[in-house]
Amino acid sequence: MYTSIRTLAVCCGIIAGAASAFEGMFTPGQLPGIAGGLRTAGLQLEPSELADLTKFPMAAVISLGGCTASFVSPHGLVVTNHHCARGSVQFHSNSRNNYLENGFLAASMADELPAAPGSRVYVTVQVDDVTERLNGGLDPDLPPRERYEIIEQREKTLIKECESDPGHRCQVPPFYGGLQYQLIKRLEIRDVRIAYAPADAIGNYGGDIDNWRWPRHSGDFAFYRAYVSTDGRTADYSADNVPYTPAHYLKVSADGLEEGSFVMAMGYPGATSRYARLATAAHTFDWAYPQLVTLFAEWIAVIEAAAPEGSDQRIRYASRLSSLNNALKNLRGQIEGARRQNLLEHRAGREAQLDAWIAAEAERAPFRDAIRQLDFVAEQTAAEQKREFWYRNARRPQLLGAAQRLYRLARERSKPDSERESGYQERDMNMIRQTMNLIGRRYDAGVDKEEWMLFLRGYLAQPKAMRFTAFDAALGLKDGYGATALSQELDSYYAGTTLNDKATRLAAMQASAEELEAGNDPFMRLAVALYETDMEIEEASKTRAGQTSLLRPRYMQAIIEWQASRGHLAYPDANSTLRVTYGTVKGGSPLDGLIYQPFTSLEGILQKYTGFPPFNAPAVQLERIRAADYGGYQLEPLGSVPVNFLSDLDSTGGNSGSATLNARGELVGLLFDGTLESVNSDWLFDPRTTRSIHVDTRYMLWVMEKIDGAGALISEMNVVR
Amino acid sequence: MYTSIRTLAVCCGIIAGAASAFEGMFTPGQLPGIAGGLRTAGLQLEPSELADLTKFPMAAVISLGGCTASFVSPHGLVVTNHHCARGSVQFHSNSRNNYLENGFLAASMADELPAAPGSRVYVTVQVDDVTERLNGGLDPDLPPRERYEIIEQREKTLIKECESDPGHRCQVPPFYGGLQYQLIKRLEIRDVRIAYAPADAIGNYGGDIDNWRWPRHSGDFAFYRAYVSTDGRTADYSADNVPYTPAHYLKVSADGLEEGSFVMAMGYPGATSRYARLATAAHTFDWAYPQLVTLFAEWIAVIEAAAPEGSDQRIRYASRLSSLNNALKNLRGQIEGARRQNLLEHRAGREAQLDAWIAAEAERAPFRDAIRQLDFVAEQTAAEQKREFWYRNARRPQLLGAAQRLYRLARERSKPDSERESGYQERDMNMIRQTMNLIGRRYDAGVDKEEWMLFLRGYLAQPKAMRFTAFDAALGLKDGYGATALSQELDSYYAGTTLNDKATRLAAMQASAEELEAGNDPFMRLAVALYETDMEIEEASKTRAGQTSLLRPRYMQAIIEWQASRGHLAYPDANSTLRVTYGTVKGGSPLDGLIYQPFTSLEGILQKYTGFPPFNAPAVQLERIRAADYGGYQLEPLGSVPVNFLSDLDSTGGNSGSATLNARGELVGLLFDGTLESVNSDWLFDPRTTRSIHVDTRYMLWVMEKIDGAGALISEMNVVR
Repeated sequence: MYTSIRTLAVCCGIIAGAASAFEGMFTPGQLPGIAGGLRTAGLQLEPSELADLTKFPMAAVISLGGCTASFVSPHGLVVTNHHCARGSVQFHSNSRNNYLENGFLAASMADELPAAPGSRVYVTVQVDDVTERLNGGLDPDLPPRERYEIIEQREKTLIKECESDPGHRCQVPPFYGGLQYQLIKRLEIRDVRIAYAPADAIGNYGGDIDNWRWPRHSGDFAFYRAYVSTDGRTADYSADNVPYTPAHYLKVSADGLEEGSFVMAMGYPGATSRYARLATAAHTFDWAYPQLVTLFAEWIAVIEAAAPEGSDQRIRYASRLSSLNNALKNLRGQIEGARRQNLLEHRAGREAQLDAWIAAEAERAPFRDAIRQLDFVAEQTAAEQKREFWYRNARRPQLLGAAQRLYRLARERSKPDSERESGYQERDMNMIRQTMNLIGRRYDAGVDKEEWMLFLRGYLAQPKAMRFTAFDAALGLKDGYGATALSQELDSYYAGTTLNDKATRLAAMQASAEELEAGNDPFMRLAVALYETDMEIEEASKTRAGQTSLLRPRYMQAIIEWQASRGHLAYPDANSTLRVTYGTVKGGSPLDGLIYQPFTSLEGILQKYTGFPPFNAPAVQLERIRAADYGGYQLEPLGSVPVNFLSDLDSTGGNSGSATLNARGELVGLLFDGTLESVNSDWLFDPRTTRSIHVDTRYMLWVMEKIDGAGALISEMNVVR
Repeated sequence: MYTSIRTLAVCCGIIAGAASAFEGMFTPGQLPGIAGGLRTAGLQLEPSELADLTKFPMAAVISLGGCTASFVSPHGLVVTNHHCARGSVQFHSNSRNNYLENGFLAASMADELPAAPGSRVYVTVQVDDVTERLNGGLDPDLPPRERYEIIEQREKTLIKECESDPGHRCQVPPFYGGLQYQLIKRLEIRDVRIAYAPADAIGNYGGDIDNWRWPRHSGDFAFYRAYVSTDGRTADYSADNVPYTPAHYLKVSADGLEEGSFVMAMGYPGATSRYARLATAAHTFDWAYPQLVTLFAEWIAVIEAAAPEGSDQRIRYASRLSSLNNALKNLRGQIEGARRQNLLEHRAGREAQLDAWIAAEAERAPFRDAIRQLDFVAEQTAAEQKREFWYRNARRPQLLGAAQRLYRLARERSKPDSERESGYQERDMNMIRQTMNLIGRRYDAGVDKEEWMLFLRGYLAQPKAMRFTAFDAALGLKDGYGATALSQELDSYYAGTTLNDKATRLAAMQASAEELEAGNDPFMRLAVALYETDMEIEEASKTRAGQTSLLRPRYMQAIIEWQASRGHLAYPDANSTLRVTYGTVKGGSPLDGLIYQPFTSLEGILQKYTGFPPFNAPAVQLERIRAADYGGYQLEPLGSVPVNFLSDLDSTGGNSGSATLNARGELVGLLFDGTLESVNSDWLFDPRTTRSIHVDTRYMLWVMEKIDGAGALISEMNVVR
């Protein structure tokens, strides 16, 4: 499934080659620029209609933070992936009401349950180009650190102005590496409730085994509902709140999609590296990813050994294990894909082409200089990542992380809000409190210590030059320090800390730096001891960011002009903002001798059925399939109800839940994954192997009608038949 | 790859439903009976020609013991699978001459190297029906143990008569569970040499990862040569020996095979369970296979921990690890397949149909009684297997096995040869000596002890009633016996034994039982202590075999008549004798949404190439593929040289190396594997999912010509273009 691997990776941006097949994660504003391509592919709407985020259909597409979703009724009903809403189902699930196992369907709106703490629906209400306000009038010769600071301050000012409108959250993401900035203003709906989620046996059918794989038979859909106060304002949960009335919502198609049909997906792809320079790609594939593969595999083994199957610890670490396994499968797929594509050779070839284009005109020389400097910064960054890799891992213990965040907060809170580091301002307090609240649910001292031992073994195996004096001193690490001594030292941390107590962590959010420094908590003492070192690392990184903020826009300008000279519209790398990608329903041949068909069918669920998770379809579903009770949702050439389908459109992690629309803008599916042969498209789009996986709305409607009796929700939606 | 899992399994027989698609492992003698089916499928030869084992083409098909092979030149040249000859390549491979890595090609006949010790080529020279001599005149009321003994004695007598012709080995396999017996006389060629094997990077391309999988790109072929003395008799290796002149050899096709082409495979399939009763199938899939899956997974983990990657121990246990992994993958595939097929329900349905046929005529009543008794024996057997499972595992230590075999040999050697247990007669001495010779190559005391600890933990976890008094007493096992005490007890075995010494083992082959009983070797003392218990187990098993020898032929007679009444020719379960199966070149859809194409191509080798085993094709091969240097071996619709192909013919373990022939009887491929979705066809043939995997002779010839320069061998063969 599509979940970001970057939260686990300690490390690691791009040039589009000839835009081929259906490559491209376009900003809505770019769509009129590719109107010809969209029409040729089959779009029946006016491309310009898609460019206005406040109109249909774009206004119906919303963000949940890490996932994408859409409004599908006038009463705030939201459809997204099952795996995006599963945390909320899990939150209310217990042995008495096992919603994970049985699914959850609210009998009426009044029975809808609050989503997991922190759940949000973000509705984009305004987008402005603020490039000039961010970048304007900056002397190119400013020292990089100062440049960074000015941009940071301008960004904070813009956000503060924007968020003066209550109930909104604003962000200023850079596009094309900072060549453009947009101020995106989003309504933040805080009362989100779970209306309906099918059982895991449907929503997560195939589980980790089928993850990143085709053929797939997952009912990866669920429904939230957004609520606001009676006066229409965003508000915390209250029984008095009323469903939010969206400006627009999507019609849901009950038919029409077949092999070759036009499809487009609207969503919030997280990050791609299509314009990353060779220096970065080489560092990533020759060093960083292989390091992570080794580390993650060992890490998984350590957790599995310390938290045996069936233990309480295993439950606490299930989510981390799942993330690590997902990331490991993805990383291996990326490494495999890069090898298959000859990524590094290809990247070198592209850079040579760009160099040749630059060399063709004397006035393009400044591009050459900027790129040369940018590559130098990329190499510096790579070297720093190597140097810091094990140190960053050695700081992974959860209570150390909490202590470091709390101590930083105490230091930042002594400054005026506008001068604080981003992430430690008043607008961030809810998020920090949330984090401090949740640590206990996924923490076990015994497992945490075994993880720390693993990281410290890696750290200690490094040459002395790769180690960090403050860290060695604080932990008393010496050359030849044995495992027993190390283990005893770590025991003293877990025995002496009180940060495992939620109240202690929440109270520490109010403490001053001096108070924290005076305390005895071993993790807090370690956090204090590391502070100066970490600030030095951060300062160096900000200096590099300042350099990049000058150089990367020039590089991207070169890319845009070069691509335009070849008739291509360069799109910006994914940055968690709303993008539109398009293509067709299409199978493929990922490997000589093997063919992926574009649709899977209900009967495939029977084929995979074992009676045990993750292949344990509900009995009533088996019965309806055996009876061929298709209810009019079948696709005739398939002779059955389509379950999932493949398309050749461009997607990545964060696209989960993306509305997949047909040529008329009707919802025909939800994007929820890519095939393993696709994952390297994050670096280089390969039209032969890249396929996105969608759940078909016909399957969704069939399950709602035939299995779960969710007729009320179907009636609430505008289903086009 | 197809290697028998039965050598590892401690446990575990069949009814053909309507013969569908291309189900059926027919004896050559049955072929005239299915002449219509063969002609319809496309055979251009006369089916009766295939029935004569001394004529073309059957006389060219030979056995290597566990694998099948064929003569392909007048000079004794034999083609088989790479994985069937790899042991011989490994035997001569060392750091100076790394034939595994580089391949081996004898510059001339004089440079051919002796195959691994014990390698044989068996050429069938005569087959006679000896049912009457084995089964004739036996009183149905004989006590079962006595019945067993008489049949055993008659078999030994037949073999002794037959083997009075020097240089021949004879066997009397039962067909249809003993309804028929054939005396098969085979010339045993003992001077076998390796002529050519491609590098592992070709012959084992894809290795364990691709094992049981499609798409496949394996060059799984190699060449032996059979040698005889100058006077044409079989002989041990001698430089003076000359190539054997086979009565017939196969022509090798360089073209012609395409999707839908008729193919037939001649080979020696090991064992199938298509007529096994429900009682046996239920025991196997509900109990035995799941037990083995758990045990094998733990066993693999124990070996991997005790013999770390890169250690000398790992090299010694590489073969066992590979077998365990192969078996585990197969068992899981079988369990999965049985679930997909609803095997047990299907078997119950078939038995109900047979019961109904029997009930339809009063004269068929004896069938009913025999089947009822047979099921009772099957249940007894299942109960015994459960009771003995952990005890049998607890006897797995290699030196205990050697001790038990040596002590049994000493006991048997005190009897006249004809009265000895089969396996301990003079004709078996070479085989025993071979085994005693080879133990050291795959043994490490440390690893062996960890394996024993695993088995003993399982044994000790059983209720007392499942344990064996003699074993508990000999090892001093008591309830609540802790791991430390057990470990110390086992240490005394490894410290005290001399059976780890080859000379000791070989010398013990001449010792009397009294001498062995008087010795101090802990493993031998344990073997002596267990002897009476094991004899009791063997006696009970022989009594059940005596019962089965009366009942199973009646059951199979019912099957044959029932099938004949429905127009089907019932074929006997596989029993390592020569069989013919036929079908067409055909892809398939093993899973909803997924299609297997029938051929893979050279370009797929590039797709999978990583530069590391098992995907490390030789540089010259990559170059020839990139240059599209097909040399006339391409298949036009494919646009490339076909590497492997799928067919829907019926095969199982032991079929490895089977000659795959086209409609004219020319060699078009070598069968080397089945897909994972096929493995459960051992119990129930599923025409939808069963696919055999073959290496295409065009790929073999292309590799010989373009990569390895084996032109001399090509010239020696009769290649049809």
